[in-house]
Amino acid sequence: MGEGRTSSFSNLQRPDGIEILPIRIELPPKGSRTLRESILLQMKRAIVDGRLVAGLLLPPTRELARHLGVARNTIVGIYDNLLSEGYVETRLGSGTFVAKRAMRLTPNQGNGRNTSDLRLVPYFRTVGVVSPDLAQEAEFDLRLGHPDKSQFPFDVWRRLSNRALRTLERAPPVPMGPHGHPALCNAIAGHISFARAVACNPGDVIVTAGAQQAFGLIARILVEPGKTIVAVEDPGYPPLRQAFAAAGAKIAPVPLDHEGLRVDLIPDEAKIVCVTPSNQMPMGMSMSFARRMALLDRVHQTGGVIVEDDYEGEFRFAGRPLEALQTLDNRERVFYVGTFTKCMFPALRLGYAVGPNWARPALAMAKQLADWHCPGAQQETMAAFISEGHLVRHVRRMRLAYQHKRELLIGALRLHLPQLEMRLTAPGLHVSATLSGTIPAGLLVTAAGNQKLRFEDLSRFVVRRDQKSNGIVFGYGLIDAEKILPAVETLKDVMASL
Amino acid sequence: MGEGRTSSFSNLQRPDGIEILPIRIELPPKGSRTLRESILLQMKRAIVDGRLVAGLLLPPTRELARHLGVARNTIVGIYDNLLSEGYVETRLGSGTFVAKRAMRLTPNQGNGRNTSDLRLVPYFRTVGVVSPDLAQEAEFDLRLGHPDKSQFPFDVWRRLSNRALRTLERAPPVPMGPHGHPALCNAIAGHISFARAVACNPGDVIVTAGAQQAFGLIARILVEPGKTIVAVEDPGYPPLRQAFAAAGAKIAPVPLDHEGLRVDLIPDEAKIVCVTPSNQMPMGMSMSFARRMALLDRVHQTGGVIVEDDYEGEFRFAGRPLEALQTLDNRERVFYVGTFTKCMFPALRLGYAVGPNWARPALAMAKQLADWHCPGAQQETMAAFISEGHLVRHVRRMRLAYQHKRELLIGALRLHLPQLEMRLTAPGLHVSATLSGTIPAGLLVTAAGNQKLRFEDLSRFVVRRDQKSNGIVFGYGLIDAEKILPAVETLKDVMASL
Repeated sequence: MGEGRTSSFSNLQRPDGIEILPIRIELPPKGSRTLRESILLQMKRAIVDGRLVAGLLLPPTRELARHLGVARNTIVGIYDNLLSEGYVETRLGSGTFVAKRAMRLTPNQGNGRNTSDLRLVPYFRTVGVVSPDLAQEAEFDLRLGHPDKSQFPFDVWRRLSNRALRTLERAPPVPMGPHGHPALCNAIAGHISFARAVACNPGDVIVTAGAQQAFGLIARILVEPGKTIVAVEDPGYPPLRQAFAAAGAKIAPVPLDHEGLRVDLIPDEAKIVCVTPSNQMPMGMSMSFARRMALLDRVHQTGGVIVEDDYEGEFRFAGRPLEALQTLDNRERVFYVGTFTKCMFPALRLGYAVGPNWARPALAMAKQLADWHCPGAQQETMAAFISEGHLVRHVRRMRLAYQHKRELLIGALRLHLPQLEMRLTAPGLHVSATLSGTIPAGLLVTAAGNQKLRFEDLSRFVVRRDQKSNGIVFGYGLIDAEKILPAVETLKDVMASL
Repeated sequence: MGEGRTSSFSNLQRPDGIEILPIRIELPPKGSRTLRESILLQMKRAIVDGRLVAGLLLPPTRELARHLGVARNTIVGIYDNLLSEGYVETRLGSGTFVAKRAMRLTPNQGNGRNTSDLRLVPYFRTVGVVSPDLAQEAEFDLRLGHPDKSQFPFDVWRRLSNRALRTLERAPPVPMGPHGHPALCNAIAGHISFARAVACNPGDVIVTAGAQQAFGLIARILVEPGKTIVAVEDPGYPPLRQAFAAAGAKIAPVPLDHEGLRVDLIPDEAKIVCVTPSNQMPMGMSMSFARRMALLDRVHQTGGVIVEDDYEGEFRFAGRPLEALQTLDNRERVFYVGTFTKCMFPALRLGYAVGPNWARPALAMAKQLADWHCPGAQQETMAAFISEGHLVRHVRRMRLAYQHKRELLIGALRLHLPQLEMRLTAPGLHVSATLSGTIPAGLLVTAAGNQKLRFEDLSRFVVRRDQKSNGIVFGYGLIDAEKILPAVETLKDVMASL
């Protein structure tokens, strides 16, 4: 039987600090009766966390048993248990694999195919596609980052779209510039000047295929592969850091406190600092004014720049929003990034970037090399949607709808689950909570999923696992208001059963 | 007065071999009466070629005179002449600048703004945006790469688009995977299997924002910055090589002969070879079968891969098209890239890539990091447009229309300008011709432009200027059939006047 020690059969680290296949198994003291349960639980968590990726071939029972110094029968029993619960599957003559159905939306999961071909650049040898986990059935859907499109005025959108296609039909064959449709640049400049007090003219705007493309374009013009260090929030939004890592940046995760990013902990060598100051993704705090000024001073001293991801700038519910970093900046340090996928619908794929003067020609060139420009008719439709006031009306309507759902959710959680420690500083489309007590978030997410209740494990946003990352995040974009109370009651039952 | 020697005040080279500001001025023998005219002509050509980019501050007359060893009055007279003809402009107290209106669509022009900020990565310090030169007025428009959208069935497209938006409205909030809409992947696989005999299944297709994005995704997963060498056709399509250069590749231009790329001249170290085998851009030859097989063998020997840009695969007019390299490949060496912008309309921005098995998960991941996926409703519209047969019908109609225009153009050129040596091997949407005699192509393009006749200088496709690059290219996508003969007659007059 094993010793009271830590063992691991794989512990690789990716250049961006994301672990790929770490399964560090802690063995209880020798002779413990909980040996089997302890290993089983740790393996389940690793599968749910995505540390053991779907499609991964597990080591033969004999090998793992020898490696851990435990009886082979113990491992055989554990594998049987994993199999009966659907965590793994067997293929005749091939061994035991992590099951696909156990996959979650994690930034670091594989997709069951071999991507390790040496012809690929290293970054793309180990990563898999983020699977669309909304394909999973959900009765109570509290997953993150998905707006409610049920109230979107599709009739208006269709009418404007038809008009734009008629315009396109008659238009002279003048190709569009990479900045985007002039009418849309104009409309966006007006929108963000008004809604977010972002200082910009139409000529400063570059229309992008969502915020994600804006991150990629900024990375392209600023990141020297293998050299540039990019500071990111930890926990933070994985696709943002992945866009920079894929461009060859070294990722430096920086912790947060209640005021937001710990500016004092940004490495001096970091050339780029990526932040979500309005509503930190996923923790939900708003960066304090003092912290904003400290960050601006910091990058001025170090010669760095800031990427300000204002992904939900429209959905602040109470009080006057704090100024965007872009507004406070007077030294050409900020790339401001926004998106229409959150305030409209995700399949739209339209966003924008406003860069400092010195970077705009390069940003436009990067956009042109990426895909010339965003689709013409869609840009024209969007321009009309903004300039005719539909966007403002829709945002106003959704702000009320989301605020109502937020209040229901917070009230229900306070009532039924007072042991959850919520963070409530910045109102957005999500609420995060620390799991005190001993329930691991991954286990809770899985158990709730079995009851068709879906929410997020905070750990999928975490870079450095030594953080206090045992927490969960609820998004209330998708869920119907009347399902919020039953969802929380279900969660209460699930927690009681663990 | 000057010596019979060559002088230059700038001769920088970009990493991808494109010269930025070379203006090498050849002085006639000392005492020549043509000194002024000679320098003037060379500067005009440099401006028209884009070697002197729009917005560039010219050196003061005194400095240039001293540098060239000519009288200052000579240079003052030249600057006056350039000014009166609109090649340059003066700004009070600031000096003499290359004028914006003299810009053409060239791969290496600046855009008049300072992009040399050291915070940018080197590639983006020197390049400017390719300006949409179609904004220039044209009575006779023979510019390249622009399809005729006047016969596109926009009514059908609007109907399908409305239906797609209705579907989107009702659809569950399942985010789309990065490969693209399953119905569109399915439709594309059917389309290229049928039209181009490209071997692929729906799961092999990745929907991209045009061919340009496909180049960028392939570059992202294959190019190790500063290391990977990419062989390109010379002359060839500038935005393709720029996509790879921007990703950090070293560009190796490879000459052509009448069979296409000189496979024997591909550097051994080239990991990626980019070709347009169906219809070489811009020379127009089709790569011979023997050359195709030699290329496949070559990359197999060197461990490289091929990027096959089949941008006009649909518009072959005569005979059975040669098999795509992708079809001939049995060793997983080919990335096949296609686009709908040429056979439909450019503002659409939809294309696709089919990669080898080993690269597909990485390609999908790269697409996801780039922009998640192409806009949902647009993909659904495109899927219906293909699967309901509209694409095939439109292509059939346009094939006849283009063939008619091609025959008119070739007939008129043969009749009126027999001195133009046309290359006619592969039928597509353009015809290229060598300018024998002494008229420089840049001068001819400018002079024709003054008569509102627009076509392309071959040199904008050239990487190595020591090639025989004095040629022109006509595109016949845009021009009305009845304007072709008057256009050629105008060209004849312009040539006679030079």
